[in-house]
Amino acid sequence: MGSPLGCGWESEGLLVQPLPTIDAHTHALNQGSPLIIIGGAEDKEREKSILKAFLAWAGGSEARLLLVPSASSMPEILAEVYRLLFVQLGAASVEVLNITNRYEAELDENVARLHNSTGLFMTGGDQVRLCKLVAGTALARAMQLASTAGRLVIAGTSAGASAMGECMIARGYSGEPPKRNIVELSEGLGLLKDVIVDQHFHNRNRLPRLMTAVASQPHCIGVGIDENTAVVLHGDGILEVLGEGTVTVVDGSELVYNTINDIQSYQPLSVGNFRIAVMAQGLRYNLRERQTL
Amino acid sequence: MGSPLGCGWESEGLLVQPLPTIDAHTHALNQGSPLIIIGGAEDKEREKSILKAFLAWAGGSEARLLLVPSASSMPEILAEVYRLLFVQLGAASVEVLNITNRYEAELDENVARLHNSTGLFMTGGDQVRLCKLVAGTALARAMQLASTAGRLVIAGTSAGASAMGECMIARGYSGEPPKRNIVELSEGLGLLKDVIVDQHFHNRNRLPRLMTAVASQPHCIGVGIDENTAVVLHGDGILEVLGEGTVTVVDGSELVYNTINDIQSYQPLSVGNFRIAVMAQGLRYNLRERQTL
Repeated sequence: MGSPLGCGWESEGLLVQPLPTIDAHTHALNQGSPLIIIGGAEDKEREKSILKAFLAWAGGSEARLLLVPSASSMPEILAEVYRLLFVQLGAASVEVLNITNRYEAELDENVARLHNSTGLFMTGGDQVRLCKLVAGTALARAMQLASTAGRLVIAGTSAGASAMGECMIARGYSGEPPKRNIVELSEGLGLLKDVIVDQHFHNRNRLPRLMTAVASQPHCIGVGIDENTAVVLHGDGILEVLGEGTVTVVDGSELVYNTINDIQSYQPLSVGNFRIAVMAQGLRYNLRERQTL
Repeated sequence: MGSPLGCGWESEGLLVQPLPTIDAHTHALNQGSPLIIIGGAEDKEREKSILKAFLAWAGGSEARLLLVPSASSMPEILAEVYRLLFVQLGAASVEVLNITNRYEAELDENVARLHNSTGLFMTGGDQVRLCKLVAGTALARAMQLASTAGRLVIAGTSAGASAMGECMIARGYSGEPPKRNIVELSEGLGLLKDVIVDQHFHNRNRLPRLMTAVASQPHCIGVGIDENTAVVLHGDGILEVLGEGTVTVVDGSELVYNTINDIQSYQPLSVGNFRIAVMAQGLRYNLRERQTL
């Protein structure tokens, strides 16, 4: 069986599958460009190591970057902050694509700007705002295709990180035990399949809400990223940890009890056992095999 | 082999062991009275279900209670609050034993007051203050003996809960990923062996510090108790969950990596995999077998 992209078979003996078609596959199961998933509050003043890592993956001094600040309620200001940073770090070009309505996200000329880029960076803000404007549009489909085809390195920080998943934490609360009403899930941009991202993670007491999300979608693996910390997720499903904090993986594949459908939304859950891995910089985790490398 | 207490063999076919001697055994491995371990902020105005449960275990209308408010910097006020509560709930008698120096904790007359009680309640405050005054004294040894012999039901809330362990979280910080400098361990009252208690648990973002504590003492099991929530720990090592929130058990017995001794105290840990169970009211967990029942 051939592939329209001229390649199409995995070499690792797990699942033999053709390469990118939007419907069946998303990033974590394909040989695409890395996704850079940032837990928010990345250093912009000192080493800037996470921003530098994204720039390097996107082509370094030859990188043509596109900033998408549409999650933010102050998109122009935030875009200018990142534009200056990436110019100073040596990108070949840095442009801003501030989508303000869904019509703009369907325009061929905006899709063409994406195709002319080597890296795309989504800022923080509100992931629901970003998805309201972009999810399901031609621009979102172009992001998926370009990423899985290995032509575009996509980064997102904070809301821009959360929005990457097919399943997304839209909103949540902290300071309470796991229960249904501390987390709202919705559909994200679809760059990541079977992975639920959370950010500002230990900083904002978000393990209870991520455990709740995984309890409701146990086929998904939860990835909680601390501030000034990032995941570099490679096309083969291997993630690497970069930065100051930790990445916490919440694996629900061995749950033996889970009351999420038996209780009222304000009642605490009983759910176990989660397998939880905490990883600092340098560690790698295989999302397919669900184990640290 | 006989036992000075006239009984002394486990019936479950696990370990055949004689009953209480202070040095070799502590509560979780013996047929003693239940310990009531409360996560702080227990309801004192409405149902008061946790306080009622303690009172019932301690003898109900025949209970002779002893309040130990020594963790608090306002011991008289706090003791009076609980004294009124337990009198209103119908205890036969409620006395206060406010230890203010270690000499008092060695006095035979204070040990005798303990032996004359059916229930002992330790308030919140600072667990280091409580242990500074009581740990290692004749009073602490009498608490251990009376509990393991089944003659005294001991409860503690907040600091009074943390202090129960042989290994105790003395202090900690939240808002950061697991790392050595977010938790200080010290020795507690020794009522619980191989169990590290934490309280105000999801309310105050304490899972990272409890994971860190378990990473440093993987033979211990971490038990994190939310506010207005309690564990009733029976002498056979079975815990029951009571109250509004959850009890989170952090089991490090399957860790396959753990960098806690390889890094500086300000650096984040890499440690996995924890097995984590979250349990609401009604669930039970076997601390010996490390599984939910």
